[in-house]
Amino acid sequence: MTTAPQSAESTGDLSELKRLLHQMSDLSAAEALMSWDQETFMPPAAARVRGLQMASLAGLAHELFTAPRMSELLNGAPTPDDQTDAALLRVVRRDHAKATRLPGEFVEERSRAQNEAHHAWIAARQNNDFASFAPHLEKMFELARRYADHQGYDDHPYDALLDDYEPGMKAAQVKVIFADLRDRTLPLLRRIAAAPDAADYSMLTRPFPLDAQRAFAVRVAQQAFGLSPDFSRLDESAHPFQTSFSRDDLRITTRFDETYFPMSLFGTWHETGHAMYEHGISAALERTPLSGGASLGVHESQSRMFENLLGRSRAFWQRYFPAFAEAAPEVAAGVSAESLYRAVNRVRPDLIRVEADEVTYNFHIMLRFELELSLLEGTLKVAELPEAWNARMQEFLGVTPPSDAQGVLQDIHWSAGLIGYFPTYTIGNLLSVQLLDAAKAQPEIAAEVERAEYGKLREWLTQHVHQYGRSKTPAEITLAATGRPLSADAYVKYLFGKYEDLYGLR
Amino acid sequence: MTTAPQSAESTGDLSELKRLLHQMSDLSAAEALMSWDQETFMPPAAARVRGLQMASLAGLAHELFTAPRMSELLNGAPTPDDQTDAALLRVVRRDHAKATRLPGEFVEERSRAQNEAHHAWIAARQNNDFASFAPHLEKMFELARRYADHQGYDDHPYDALLDDYEPGMKAAQVKVIFADLRDRTLPLLRRIAAAPDAADYSMLTRPFPLDAQRAFAVRVAQQAFGLSPDFSRLDESAHPFQTSFSRDDLRITTRFDETYFPMSLFGTWHETGHAMYEHGISAALERTPLSGGASLGVHESQSRMFENLLGRSRAFWQRYFPAFAEAAPEVAAGVSAESLYRAVNRVRPDLIRVEADEVTYNFHIMLRFELELSLLEGTLKVAELPEAWNARMQEFLGVTPPSDAQGVLQDIHWSAGLIGYFPTYTIGNLLSVQLLDAAKAQPEIAAEVERAEYGKLREWLTQHVHQYGRSKTPAEITLAATGRPLSADAYVKYLFGKYEDLYGLR
Repeated sequence: MTTAPQSAESTGDLSELKRLLHQMSDLSAAEALMSWDQETFMPPAAARVRGLQMASLAGLAHELFTAPRMSELLNGAPTPDDQTDAALLRVVRRDHAKATRLPGEFVEERSRAQNEAHHAWIAARQNNDFASFAPHLEKMFELARRYADHQGYDDHPYDALLDDYEPGMKAAQVKVIFADLRDRTLPLLRRIAAAPDAADYSMLTRPFPLDAQRAFAVRVAQQAFGLSPDFSRLDESAHPFQTSFSRDDLRITTRFDETYFPMSLFGTWHETGHAMYEHGISAALERTPLSGGASLGVHESQSRMFENLLGRSRAFWQRYFPAFAEAAPEVAAGVSAESLYRAVNRVRPDLIRVEADEVTYNFHIMLRFELELSLLEGTLKVAELPEAWNARMQEFLGVTPPSDAQGVLQDIHWSAGLIGYFPTYTIGNLLSVQLLDAAKAQPEIAAEVERAEYGKLREWLTQHVHQYGRSKTPAEITLAATGRPLSADAYVKYLFGKYEDLYGLR
Repeated sequence: MTTAPQSAESTGDLSELKRLLHQMSDLSAAEALMSWDQETFMPPAAARVRGLQMASLAGLAHELFTAPRMSELLNGAPTPDDQTDAALLRVVRRDHAKATRLPGEFVEERSRAQNEAHHAWIAARQNNDFASFAPHLEKMFELARRYADHQGYDDHPYDALLDDYEPGMKAAQVKVIFADLRDRTLPLLRRIAAAPDAADYSMLTRPFPLDAQRAFAVRVAQQAFGLSPDFSRLDESAHPFQTSFSRDDLRITTRFDETYFPMSLFGTWHETGHAMYEHGISAALERTPLSGGASLGVHESQSRMFENLLGRSRAFWQRYFPAFAEAAPEVAAGVSAESLYRAVNRVRPDLIRVEADEVTYNFHIMLRFELELSLLEGTLKVAELPEAWNARMQEFLGVTPPSDAQGVLQDIHWSAGLIGYFPTYTIGNLLSVQLLDAAKAQPEIAAEVERAEYGKLREWLTQHVHQYGRSKTPAEITLAATGRPLSADAYVKYLFGKYEDLYGLR
């Protein structure tokens, strides 16, 4: 407690604390709206001032959170009887400890360095010039090490980074799970790569007019996945994303390519999975720090479930093929539900993570995880990174990037200081199957999913995952919903079942 | 000065003050974006939480402004050498005095009462039931009187209300100007009303497809008035408005009626006038309280100039008729530039303010000004208001509303507590002509305007009006730009010149 004049005021109930947390949540919603607007509708000349405005609101929220009165309120709060209030205090104290452990100078230095690194990365990727980005990448890893030192950790500095995206998860756990996944799926990938094509893929690049593409993507998002224009909108942006300003104000974006419809369809359903997670968070958590996903991995499990486990399933295309054929008669000419299902599940080891299929995707992630661990530990030098990247690509996927732009420079993450973030994509993939299996243990859910109906599944997800927001940890949610901790088992079984069938490997 | 711990910190330069003012300005921009989004793209179910978020950000800005540190910084600030800094201190001290004179309980009571009055007004207008709105209207005028008492005034409580919208203007001045305007234009209106039609008006209701309407409205806004998609957007909303989040982030909205194109065309050009004002404000005032219009009246002078003085001029339609005819061939069939010019300048005494022409519009305002003065003074009772309204309508315009919904209940303003606001519309009309006359005193501007080119005029407006933002008062701007204080002279002369010609009254 400080001796500031406010300390005379009561800290005996949570009302003042909640009022401050509402303000912070509202500031965060405003910043998110500014960001959404920037990517969708903002006129180009507005960019400079918009950047200043967003930084200013973020700074104001940080000031509110690190002001002495917040410490007093958190220290002086009574132990709540209410479970939600108890979770709120637990999570806010954790966030607060993280926020107050960082010296202001460090935050400023990092912010400047990230900004410079981001611009350097854009230029480096454009010019295929890794060397010009290398000093910035070194700085990002140096800052990550210092960040971990400020936050503290028991086993590995990576734990302190990962915890921001996947609370409670440790690098050691990720290593074990990823090694298991790699050892069990690499042989499958090798067999698929050696097998003949499972379908004629030429339909994927037939023209599908944009308006019809959009209408079909939205129709399915609504009918199958429960999205509604009452509480959501779909717009276009250069990079698809989902954001929300409340559980009834969900914004998703997608991008369209007339001659490659999978991009917009699966992209829209992916973001719909994220959106429906936010929509399912309990109204009791409204405008508080609990009103968000439990982790990036849990969030990704919901988007991947809609995009891949459901949207790329045979049952789904049996049900929606007639609507697809009506929306895109030229694409569907001479095509069956089965051949479309096979086409959208093409496995092809390739260079770019964001375009990877269900089998190869995780290898892109495992490669990044291994490299960022080594860089953080100092056992790999930044100068050696492109070579290490290309060697791993060859080892895992049998391809070698013809340029660093299509290799080590392809992702924005490291340039933005997002180190420890990549594993959450694969955690999401693994969890998506583990959750779907648990839901389908209820026969009526399994029966519906076989008919490509997802109403009961969505109720189950809301009950077991969505409603809790951040009030439970990912590990608690996973254990309670599926009966066991996260592992690669369900995902491996899913891949074998689906792709041995598709590629005639049985 | 308080004895809070912060008082030990220096107040010797303006940097901390400016940082706080930037934060307040950014909060205000965020709230404006939330409001724009609410009227354009927000999904309907989001409304409840959006209302809470906007109120929360407004409350936070108020807390920053009324915190003890702000008083210290304003009291302790050195006298700046820089003119802009001096204006900043002057305006912020004035705003601060107003904000701190109101007790918190008054602000809360008023906010609640306005909310109730607004909902009561919506229902009353729908049901044509003035009696159900009357107690709320009484409350609004009671609160207005108490507001004036809190703020203080020399001559009339109305001055304290008017000052919020038209800084420095007094009710006594408005009375004199309005009486002059009324006495000189009522005879003109009577002669017009007795004259035969100036044109065949049937073209105004011919179908003009919406996409083409929009494209033409935008094309003219860009080509004639300088709007650019680089720093602006046009969207649709139920009620047209203009807002901005910086001088390079202007948002205007309009509404479209396929069988009444004047609504979207003149509406778009009206909002373009507002937008170009904000665009012209000096970048040196960015993210400060000086970055806004000098007053509502000065703002309206810019919108009315584009909409009416230019957009409804003969020269304008001579120039843009070919483009109009290309955009709307069915409307333009058998129509000439001259007949279109005459049609869009139809004078018709009627019931509704927002649809009124250049001659009758100000009578709608004068009526409201007189009535709100009497209500504030207590010489008119709320119960007597509908009768007084209808009598004035008959006296000024020769029409009597068939219902209160089309009479005293037509405007939102009083239900929102906006008392003292209406005169700014007519002040804007008067000032628009006074400014345009002053600009046209430069022969090269007059010559351009005769060709419906407005580049030099816009430069003149930026130099004499826009750039100053709120750093000069409306009276200072008016005097410096036109050489004399605001009066009805220029507007009266304009009306006579235009409408004696149109209606063959010479």
